[in-house]
Amino acid sequence: MSVLDEPLHFDPAALGAGVRPGKVTLVGAGPGDPELLTVKAARALQCASLVLYDQLVDPAVLALLPRDAERIYVGKASGHHSMAQDAIIELMLGLALAGRPLLRLKGGDPYIFGRGGEEAQALAAAGVPFEVIPGISAAQGAAAMAGMPLTHRDHACSLVLTTGHLRQDAHGDAGDRIVDLDWDLLARPRQTVVVYMGVGTLPIICGKLIEHGLPADTPAATIERATRPDQRTVVGTVATLPSLALLHRVKPPALIMIGGVVSLREQLAPASSGVRLSANA
Amino acid sequence: MSVLDEPLHFDPAALGAGVRPGKVTLVGAGPGDPELLTVKAARALQCASLVLYDQLVDPAVLALLPRDAERIYVGKASGHHSMAQDAIIELMLGLALAGRPLLRLKGGDPYIFGRGGEEAQALAAAGVPFEVIPGISAAQGAAAMAGMPLTHRDHACSLVLTTGHLRQDAHGDAGDRIVDLDWDLLARPRQTVVVYMGVGTLPIICGKLIEHGLPADTPAATIERATRPDQRTVVGTVATLPSLALLHRVKPPALIMIGGVVSLREQLAPASSGVRLSANA
Repeated sequence: MSVLDEPLHFDPAALGAGVRPGKVTLVGAGPGDPELLTVKAARALQCASLVLYDQLVDPAVLALLPRDAERIYVGKASGHHSMAQDAIIELMLGLALAGRPLLRLKGGDPYIFGRGGEEAQALAAAGVPFEVIPGISAAQGAAAMAGMPLTHRDHACSLVLTTGHLRQDAHGDAGDRIVDLDWDLLARPRQTVVVYMGVGTLPIICGKLIEHGLPADTPAATIERATRPDQRTVVGTVATLPSLALLHRVKPPALIMIGGVVSLREQLAPASSGVRLSANA
Repeated sequence: MSVLDEPLHFDPAALGAGVRPGKVTLVGAGPGDPELLTVKAARALQCASLVLYDQLVDPAVLALLPRDAERIYVGKASGHHSMAQDAIIELMLGLALAGRPLLRLKGGDPYIFGRGGEEAQALAAAGVPFEVIPGISAAQGAAAMAGMPLTHRDHACSLVLTTGHLRQDAHGDAGDRIVDLDWDLLARPRQTVVVYMGVGTLPIICGKLIEHGLPADTPAATIERATRPDQRTVVGTVATLPSLALLHRVKPPALIMIGGVVSLREQLAPASSGVRLSANA
């Protein structure tokens, strides 16, 4: 169900008739390092007066805002949402329709697992003008820093981005959580798979992939805090990664990267920090 | 076969013994609009003294270079390579090993269909220090501007990026060109597929997808010159897109976007230019 099927809890007509809605700029904040913002996003930040920002936006990015910009935190941490998606949309619409231009700042790229599509739909439906500024997605930042060329021809002809996050309403007890992915797709050979928000469900993901035919010795890694100064990479195989991640206490935000390109790290990131383990460790 | 299996045509030892190799910065130039460069890439451009750049790098991006920067065009146009990949690598290594720091500028993201992985491997093998700066990939720029949120939950749980370009050495006569893709992967439901460099092989791609079970009425679009002022979008279905693309003379550089998210354009890009056709046109 789209959020647009739900009733809107505000009355646009009641919000100062005749007020022109403020423009909303949906901005991708990139993977963390503020230098990886686009020039366009950096400019938008530097002249923002009101910002709604997410959990995954790095403090160094927020530091680019004018000192007197109003900042509203609408972050969601995995598992415990501090603000539900429909409440974020309602707040954003309420402010925009009251005439306030605002910047909606989202980690990574707004249109890659950022739920920016739902926010754009709500804005369009309410007649609020908006613009989308793309951002470097975490997989790109992580690949560049960890030495894993996402589509190296010797290892991959496709790049698949997916999410290990539980679909909304899929939350049951901790014991019976469901990860509803297309396992046959993800287990295919000659591709690179990047799973966003999958650390909490890593054992399920790796188990299912092996069950669906992915060789157990396929290189796999977790990349924690991509592009931040403390980015940390743990390398193993789909068979060993769950226990390695447990051993090294890998925590969100982190990506899972699966496929032959992971093995290129050895060669391409000789000077990087992070946990170095052979593919068979 | 990796380019590294081929003999290197220069002798590192002969290039001024004792000369420290220059650092190579592999920079993603983004999809076209220079405002979509990362801040880090823009800075690197502004202080470059020597640049090797590709066909897909927009002139507006090159305009950021210092006036006296040396520019070497090593572009490859689809079908007729003006410089083969191994010659590019040889030139880059030769310059770097002679002590010249240089910027290797590639369209989009160096690690997404940019062959940056092969270039990084060659640099690593030759002991040349290098850094990779990611870039906004064409799919991201196109999605933001064309109103197609790549992973909207109602339409997709995965994003698949692939290339319709012919693999090297797959060139035969024009009549028997082979597109070697994982059709079963690409024909799966509930995903967004973006095909880079696929305009020349669009009829083969759409035909194969339908043959492998993708419903013929699946929304599909071509997006030409993503993020440039003259970006143009042609929307149809996998059944109709090949003839529409022919009718509207769609030319490279262009992306093919396939999946339910294409249908959101109607709602999310009301003011955009481009050819507007219903999904059943």
